[in-house]
Amino acid sequence: MVGVFHLPAPPRGFARPTATKEQPMPRPMTMAEKILAAHAGLDEVEPGQLIECDLDLVLSNDVTAPIAVKEFRKIGVEKVFDPEKIALVPDHYVPNKDIKSAEQAKIVRDFAREQGITHYYEVGCMGVEHALLPEQGVVGAGDLIIGADSHTCTYGALGAFATGVGSTDAGVGYATGKAWFKVPESLLFKIEGELAPGVTGKDVILHIIGMIGVDGALYQAMEFTGSAIRTMGMDERMSISNMAIEAGGKAGLIEVDDVTRAYMDGRTERPYTEYHSDPDAMYAKVYEIDAASIVPTVSFPHLPSNTRPAAEARDIKIDQAVIGSCTNGRIVDMRQAADVLRGRKIHPDVRCIVIPATQAVYRQCMEEGLMDVFLDANCAVSTPTCGPCLGGYMGILAAGERAIATTNRNFVGRMGDPTSEVYLSSPAIAAASAVLGHIGLPEDLD
Amino acid sequence: MVGVFHLPAPPRGFARPTATKEQPMPRPMTMAEKILAAHAGLDEVEPGQLIECDLDLVLSNDVTAPIAVKEFRKIGVEKVFDPEKIALVPDHYVPNKDIKSAEQAKIVRDFAREQGITHYYEVGCMGVEHALLPEQGVVGAGDLIIGADSHTCTYGALGAFATGVGSTDAGVGYATGKAWFKVPESLLFKIEGELAPGVTGKDVILHIIGMIGVDGALYQAMEFTGSAIRTMGMDERMSISNMAIEAGGKAGLIEVDDVTRAYMDGRTERPYTEYHSDPDAMYAKVYEIDAASIVPTVSFPHLPSNTRPAAEARDIKIDQAVIGSCTNGRIVDMRQAADVLRGRKIHPDVRCIVIPATQAVYRQCMEEGLMDVFLDANCAVSTPTCGPCLGGYMGILAAGERAIATTNRNFVGRMGDPTSEVYLSSPAIAAASAVLGHIGLPEDLD
Repeated sequence: MVGVFHLPAPPRGFARPTATKEQPMPRPMTMAEKILAAHAGLDEVEPGQLIECDLDLVLSNDVTAPIAVKEFRKIGVEKVFDPEKIALVPDHYVPNKDIKSAEQAKIVRDFAREQGITHYYEVGCMGVEHALLPEQGVVGAGDLIIGADSHTCTYGALGAFATGVGSTDAGVGYATGKAWFKVPESLLFKIEGELAPGVTGKDVILHIIGMIGVDGALYQAMEFTGSAIRTMGMDERMSISNMAIEAGGKAGLIEVDDVTRAYMDGRTERPYTEYHSDPDAMYAKVYEIDAASIVPTVSFPHLPSNTRPAAEARDIKIDQAVIGSCTNGRIVDMRQAADVLRGRKIHPDVRCIVIPATQAVYRQCMEEGLMDVFLDANCAVSTPTCGPCLGGYMGILAAGERAIATTNRNFVGRMGDPTSEVYLSSPAIAAASAVLGHIGLPEDLD
Repeated sequence: MVGVFHLPAPPRGFARPTATKEQPMPRPMTMAEKILAAHAGLDEVEPGQLIECDLDLVLSNDVTAPIAVKEFRKIGVEKVFDPEKIALVPDHYVPNKDIKSAEQAKIVRDFAREQGITHYYEVGCMGVEHALLPEQGVVGAGDLIIGADSHTCTYGALGAFATGVGSTDAGVGYATGKAWFKVPESLLFKIEGELAPGVTGKDVILHIIGMIGVDGALYQAMEFTGSAIRTMGMDERMSISNMAIEAGGKAGLIEVDDVTRAYMDGRTERPYTEYHSDPDAMYAKVYEIDAASIVPTVSFPHLPSNTRPAAEARDIKIDQAVIGSCTNGRIVDMRQAADVLRGRKIHPDVRCIVIPATQAVYRQCMEEGLMDVFLDANCAVSTPTCGPCLGGYMGILAAGERAIATTNRNFVGRMGDPTSEVYLSSPAIAAASAVLGHIGLPEDLD
């Protein structure tokens, strides 16, 4: 299971540098290493090396930007390094939950106006940051991105190196457009074969986290490959990369292929660059996973790694289902949930809250008739927000209540009272559970 | 302006009791008096009289029901008087804003289950109470309704006597199905003539409150009549009755006519009863208002009575517009807002939050293409909630921020920080202002 893994021949259009007398051949590198090297102006880097990199984007939200702005002010420069390379997305407590969150949002808004930040997203043009930025073409392959939000790793699905940082780093990033990195080791997750019907990207990543634990990829770049990934659409790939951090990963990358290109072409604002891992690149570990062995999976409280097959969780009664978030709030997620809910009603003891992650997803739900399905089933459909995922608002749990959620974390008290419980799953499992009143599978509904 | 007002001949199907030797003719009564008398088992009542009445419905929400339940427990009875005559509508902080509101909602939910309350509305089947109950046919003409929410007076638009009470009264109502009333004096507001285009029910009631003040109808039943009312649809009539309390009114009644009947027929669960004011009924005051004199009106901070023509408010820059609430969250309100927003964009400095008041209104907005208009204009569309109206969530204001809102109260700090300001208006004015960035009229957009 562990060892050096050889990738198949590089895809069309991919050129491996050629060694010359003057310029020795760089060491074989993973895509993570290549992106970092390119942004440090270096031919090669190796794990453990400390490097300073130019950033393509610095992201923050209504929780982290106010702190980042404060740090930025301390530096003493007047202007941000590039107003087109900072993204400010108020999405956690917006539309404002209370006076405090209104003040936070105002700090972000005022800063965006003062600095002429082009990627500021106001209420009504807003979405959950990690769904919004890929959709809007603000991130693309080859980018080096830091975000003051742990799920910044989502953009790895587009072939970017994207990682969560603290607000201080983001503030420095605003000013300098640079950040220091320790080059991480890489891990390769090779998922070969065909996923069973109903097994989604979310199940893949929950399965992996269950396998390696919440520190199984600590400060390492997770790279996902294999035929199961290659046949997967972008939305599900983003669910996978999104949760790299839940295994401690520094980033969660997926090689650019025709699916990625089809998603990015005509969408990304800046030209993108493909970085492919060298066939002889070194990985700290290679995990080979048989896709057929992955079943619909649920993470039990209170860790994402506490996974069990959904089929073994049928005794868990639930009070709420949440379908949305940066993990599973994209259109494919909405479709998967709607496919289960079509013609059915939410169990009377359950509140089912559906949150399309962006205005565009919301709109597409309407156009595809998914909104009708949700309303017919008695779901509450919210304007885009992170809301319940982080215990913000829009579905907070009382003492002892249980939710199944397509979100990414089920830590103690994550969605409300410390005695409440969150079970993580795919949209299909969450939808089926909402109808059943307990955790279950779509086939349980027949 | 003040005096005894004679109504036109009673409508078809209306029978005035006939005096006989044994049964003397009751004193002429207003519709408010007749409803109270009927529910007290009396032939007649007069203002100032204290009576005990049977209730047709006792309403409470997630803020007031928990207190009412506590009071109910003190009484020592096990069962509510009638589980079909209690309405529990969690709408203020639901979907739960935080742990505290989750606990409140849980108390209501647990009580509804324990008592078998038929009119309990869960997340996903929910709406703003005063829009939901008429829509669902839970209230109808001739009803006597108490609600632990001040805008319970809304149902007066259906020819009911409906009034806000404290949670203690509601708790006693749960147990006994009865309440004490001091029969109020009645005021007649006769709005004759044709409203100018763009002048709505909301402008009528703001105009009246501006005219008589926030205590202009203190503990009096306001009765609205005249040709301007008779040609008005139910949604706008409900906006008028809804704000009776903002003039101190005990109730805000509108006589049943064909418009009311068309709304109620096939909708109300229980048979309804029409009570028409006698032609020689006594009113404490009669206000005769020329409909043509009413202009689009805005209530400035910090009282609903602080009214000015919208045309004189153009220097007021705004940060937020809220279109929704029990006052103006019905389909006609949504249409009026959409008519202004169609093909336009919200001003970049403004957040525009649209909240259809019920799931049905939300659904109808989709079906009529209004949702497309809102999304195209960059509005955030929320799941039904009272939210921002009472400073709950979903659009709270920071220090110094200003909102125009179709809600009903603009007291200090009502929508957020004590230094924030709320301007009340119709949906059309709020929508136009959202596009302009300052208060203005739809015609300013041309």
